[in-house]
Amino acid sequence: MHADVKAAMEPYFSEVFYNPSATYNAGRQAKQALEAARAEVAGVLGAKPSEIIFTAGGTEANNLAIHGILHKHEDAELLVSAVEHESVLQPAREHVHQEIVVDAKGQINLQDLQSKINEHTVLISVMYANNEVGTIQPLRKVVQLAEETRKQRRKRGVVTPLYVHTDACQASNYLDLHVSRLGVDLMTLNGGKIYGPKQSGVLFVASHVVLKPQITGGGQERGLRSGTENVAGAVGFARALELAQVNRHDNLRSMYQLQQQFIQAIEQVLPNTVLNGSTKHRLPNNIHLTLPGQDNERLLFALDERGIMAAAGSACSASDDEPSHVLRAMGISEADAQASLRFTMGSGTTEQAIDQTVKTLADILSTT
Amino acid sequence: MHADVKAAMEPYFSEVFYNPSATYNAGRQAKQALEAARAEVAGVLGAKPSEIIFTAGGTEANNLAIHGILHKHEDAELLVSAVEHESVLQPAREHVHQEIVVDAKGQINLQDLQSKINEHTVLISVMYANNEVGTIQPLRKVVQLAEETRKQRRKRGVVTPLYVHTDACQASNYLDLHVSRLGVDLMTLNGGKIYGPKQSGVLFVASHVVLKPQITGGGQERGLRSGTENVAGAVGFARALELAQVNRHDNLRSMYQLQQQFIQAIEQVLPNTVLNGSTKHRLPNNIHLTLPGQDNERLLFALDERGIMAAAGSACSASDDEPSHVLRAMGISEADAQASLRFTMGSGTTEQAIDQTVKTLADILSTT
Repeated sequence: MHADVKAAMEPYFSEVFYNPSATYNAGRQAKQALEAARAEVAGVLGAKPSEIIFTAGGTEANNLAIHGILHKHEDAELLVSAVEHESVLQPAREHVHQEIVVDAKGQINLQDLQSKINEHTVLISVMYANNEVGTIQPLRKVVQLAEETRKQRRKRGVVTPLYVHTDACQASNYLDLHVSRLGVDLMTLNGGKIYGPKQSGVLFVASHVVLKPQITGGGQERGLRSGTENVAGAVGFARALELAQVNRHDNLRSMYQLQQQFIQAIEQVLPNTVLNGSTKHRLPNNIHLTLPGQDNERLLFALDERGIMAAAGSACSASDDEPSHVLRAMGISEADAQASLRFTMGSGTTEQAIDQTVKTLADILSTT
Repeated sequence: MHADVKAAMEPYFSEVFYNPSATYNAGRQAKQALEAARAEVAGVLGAKPSEIIFTAGGTEANNLAIHGILHKHEDAELLVSAVEHESVLQPAREHVHQEIVVDAKGQINLQDLQSKINEHTVLISVMYANNEVGTIQPLRKVVQLAEETRKQRRKRGVVTPLYVHTDACQASNYLDLHVSRLGVDLMTLNGGKIYGPKQSGVLFVASHVVLKPQITGGGQERGLRSGTENVAGAVGFARALELAQVNRHDNLRSMYQLQQQFIQAIEQVLPNTVLNGSTKHRLPNNIHLTLPGQDNERLLFALDERGIMAAAGSACSASDDEPSHVLRAMGISEADAQASLRFTMGSGTTEQAIDQTVKTLADILSTT
């Protein structure tokens, strides 16, 4: 957690701890802090405060988006990319859905998307950037396709709406989250990915979108997420999001330099290594490699022993037995998937750490 | 939040912040802290660690209990008391359900419960103690009734299970939460009610109970609550629960003395006042009064101006326009409901504060 985020949260742990729904003055103070956080998030996203729903994390927000739309429309269908996070894919599987295929770099095939839109399609969910290989999706083109479909439906008198949802959890530190520039109807954000508190999140829900709530009770968050509000979490989330978006150009630039350094060093030292995902449309903090013939479990273990934390598959998944659905969707063989590693960089990553990582990886490979 | 709780959480905000599902050593450290918290909670409750599901609060846990059971059993029905929290009542309304009537003190009518159990009943949800009037329910008798029903079903070869769920959010500081002594199959707990972190909670799910998860994705919490785990929240919750249960006899005694002082002072100074709820089976921190002929909104405002925080209805509800369903179920008239106030005491409440509160209330009433 960023020190500023922690500092912003501090008063709400044990001082301004009252229930924001209480009518007395101390409750109203907590409410004011909550609403100030909501307005701050809305300001950063170019949204209205009433369009910001605080959730307990990105997974909950993704579930709310998918179930919320699909439970509201009978006979409805949805389209999701084949490389979505499990918290989109699993809710999608409870409804009539189709998966949009991706190319070898992990980008969705727009023709495939277009061909799969039918009269029952109410939702397209395509992530902003992928959590495993870092590939950035052509979100603007997805939105354009949805806009054309809506226009055609209107002409033919079809009243079924078509919404676009994006899981932007991975994008927040580097890419533009302004919702009207993006043109999305729903967007998921996660505090834990932006140096904010764990299990804090937001679902942006454009005012024209009606959702069925998933967690009901006291009717908090416009009735879409009941439960006494986590004021400290909301305040921390807002501060973290503001920091992430204000600094995103700097973050992008510095991280891109480290990424280039990493890629060039790997090319020199381990020329057989394959960089997975797009080189052009890629998160700057992601390095995803296939080291042909190697066993990633052994490499992860050896790296960890030397103080280097890498991953195979998604760290968000509680069990790692299955090969990654993302790599499979990209057409990467099971053998290559098992020879693949992901390195993720963050605000604490230095040039020295990159050098050390590549050197250590080469050392491990040379001593096999 | 209790100072010890805050201190216990501190390392997990910015130091041990890694994803507990990550395979590297730092991730495993976070996982160990999470599992230690789970074992601590299980120890306090007399449960197995695998029976402890961390949630983002009591509302989510109640939703998971109700939907989780009812979505798992076709043609199933549930029984809930008429005075449950909205986070039980609202999920219940999405299924075939009946409400168990309560008496004038807010205790459930056990004959009514018995008469409403039918062949399709899979779940009885009765709260441990009420959040508005503080009435403690005869939970042990509910469990006995369920046990008899199960025995009869077994004799007749009926395989439909019958589970007992209790929302114990209000009970944790004062009453015994040992699940095998209570005999419940599911139990909801809330961190915010025990000087723990907001939006932390637990659903105890006995190992023989199978639930359909409500939030899916990475498969955390035995697949019942996906989403990157809130390690700080779990650690804080565990510490808070342990403190609450270790100190519950002392809490009960000291709070009971303050409650008696409050009641006796009210009887002396404002003899027309009615104490709602049970006098015998009552949470020691709750005072719920009807001041006949008065307007509670005006009183709340006047009290708040003088630094005294009281409530009408449930503070957990985001909108207070409706008269309390709890008071209505107890047969209290709308006029009396509108003349009713709730005072809740806590670890910071002193004898002086009680005197001051009763004196201030009398002053406000005398200047009308």
